[in-house]
Amino acid sequence: MNITIVGAGNVAWHLAPALQAAGHKITAIYSRTLAHAKELSRRLSDTLATQSLDFTTIATDVVLIAVPDAVIVAVANELKVKPGAILAHTSGSQPLTVLQTIAGERAGVFYPLQTFSKQKPVDLQQVPVLVEGVMEETTKVLEELAQSISRQVARVDSEKRKQLHLAAVFACNFTNHLLGISHELLQHAGLPINLLQPLVQETIEKATAHHPFTVQTGPAIRHDQNVIEEHLRLLQTEPELQQLYRLLTDSIQHRSKKG
Amino acid sequence: MNITIVGAGNVAWHLAPALQAAGHKITAIYSRTLAHAKELSRRLSDTLATQSLDFTTIATDVVLIAVPDAVIVAVANELKVKPGAILAHTSGSQPLTVLQTIAGERAGVFYPLQTFSKQKPVDLQQVPVLVEGVMEETTKVLEELAQSISRQVARVDSEKRKQLHLAAVFACNFTNHLLGISHELLQHAGLPINLLQPLVQETIEKATAHHPFTVQTGPAIRHDQNVIEEHLRLLQTEPELQQLYRLLTDSIQHRSKKG
Repeated sequence: MNITIVGAGNVAWHLAPALQAAGHKITAIYSRTLAHAKELSRRLSDTLATQSLDFTTIATDVVLIAVPDAVIVAVANELKVKPGAILAHTSGSQPLTVLQTIAGERAGVFYPLQTFSKQKPVDLQQVPVLVEGVMEETTKVLEELAQSISRQVARVDSEKRKQLHLAAVFACNFTNHLLGISHELLQHAGLPINLLQPLVQETIEKATAHHPFTVQTGPAIRHDQNVIEEHLRLLQTEPELQQLYRLLTDSIQHRSKKG
Repeated sequence: MNITIVGAGNVAWHLAPALQAAGHKITAIYSRTLAHAKELSRRLSDTLATQSLDFTTIATDVVLIAVPDAVIVAVANELKVKPGAILAHTSGSQPLTVLQTIAGERAGVFYPLQTFSKQKPVDLQQVPVLVEGVMEETTKVLEELAQSISRQVARVDSEKRKQLHLAAVFACNFTNHLLGISHELLQHAGLPINLLQPLVQETIEKATAHHPFTVQTGPAIRHDQNVIEEHLRLLQTEPELQQLYRLLTDSIQHRSKKG
């Protein structure tokens, strides 16, 4: 297929080469900042780098809109494409409807469920890609496109994608923050940062193999009040961390009661 | 060395065979419940299973006390060993002093920094073992014992071990709880539980390679108020999760300001 990519950020950075490697042609890369579009187009072959959203002269089956959530609609409104091209955004939290008024039946979603950064290669074959379209024909095209780069493709509608995104915030964004807090606590204590790595890895493996609530360990689930109070005392100069510690401890104890 | 293990729970279950494989002799396994001691002794050779804490007739260089934190002192008080034997507990949260009144200069700590369950094999070579002793001679013996089963041995005093334990609560216990919440959110939405696994794994890898605060992603760090409010709306029937969501979002936003 002929693919045009709007955006040259982290998502575009990984999607574009993977799509090209799968045999598609990346006809153009758009970025507001031309240098960014050029940086990405140099990793591809025969790809136009452009600052213009007028693609009416460019062969395009699918336009992937890989820009920050807040500007999807603004960018889509400016977009000019050949009739028949599918418009799909790559966002986990935006509904299909944000593109529907602009693209009608050609509106879709093409959401790779992974966190991308330019420095780190990602094996897209292992990354679930969730697709959605206003009509079956659109969904099918996006599904095929997804299957060409990933082994895990699923049709997920906007409502479920929103709930998935919420679950991802807990499992990834919040988890990362807790790891950051732990990192700082180790630093303040003058302890090696990597000391907890085997324990973190094991925790994740267990939480993957079982329902995490059934393998919960630590002072909260043991209702070990002495240790809990000692920890709160250690956090006395960090009221925010104290509050987090208390709330997470309470939440662990409540969940275990629910069984 | 001749090792006696007090306790037949998860820690003893993994330590005993590893120590034997390293060439030590496990002379006895104690459990309050004889059947538990027998279950573990059957995995070893020439090991006595016992319900008695009188080891005065048993050759022992080191007694490892691998029982729940709350009963360490009670068990140690009852313990009778040959003169000269070292007494070490395996707890991350208990100070050395809990054994010092009983064992004097022969008191120590032998803390394998991992979460153990009987069902799951653990490569102890990769598990940091933190040791501490009242006097250098005791520390040295425990250090040698640790080095015989693990590649990562460190001397860590009680105050630092306490801070390490606090960091582990954030990085492991609390993280596991968030994964449990995410698991439930996926279940409620009727989505496959394994959908987030690649994302979780990538999050952990990134948080290991970098300071987690520098690779934070998601609506909180982007100050994406629309998404945050939508998520809080989705959680409206779960006030506890709403509160957790709010507090973690605030905490992420405050930390990023600190830089």
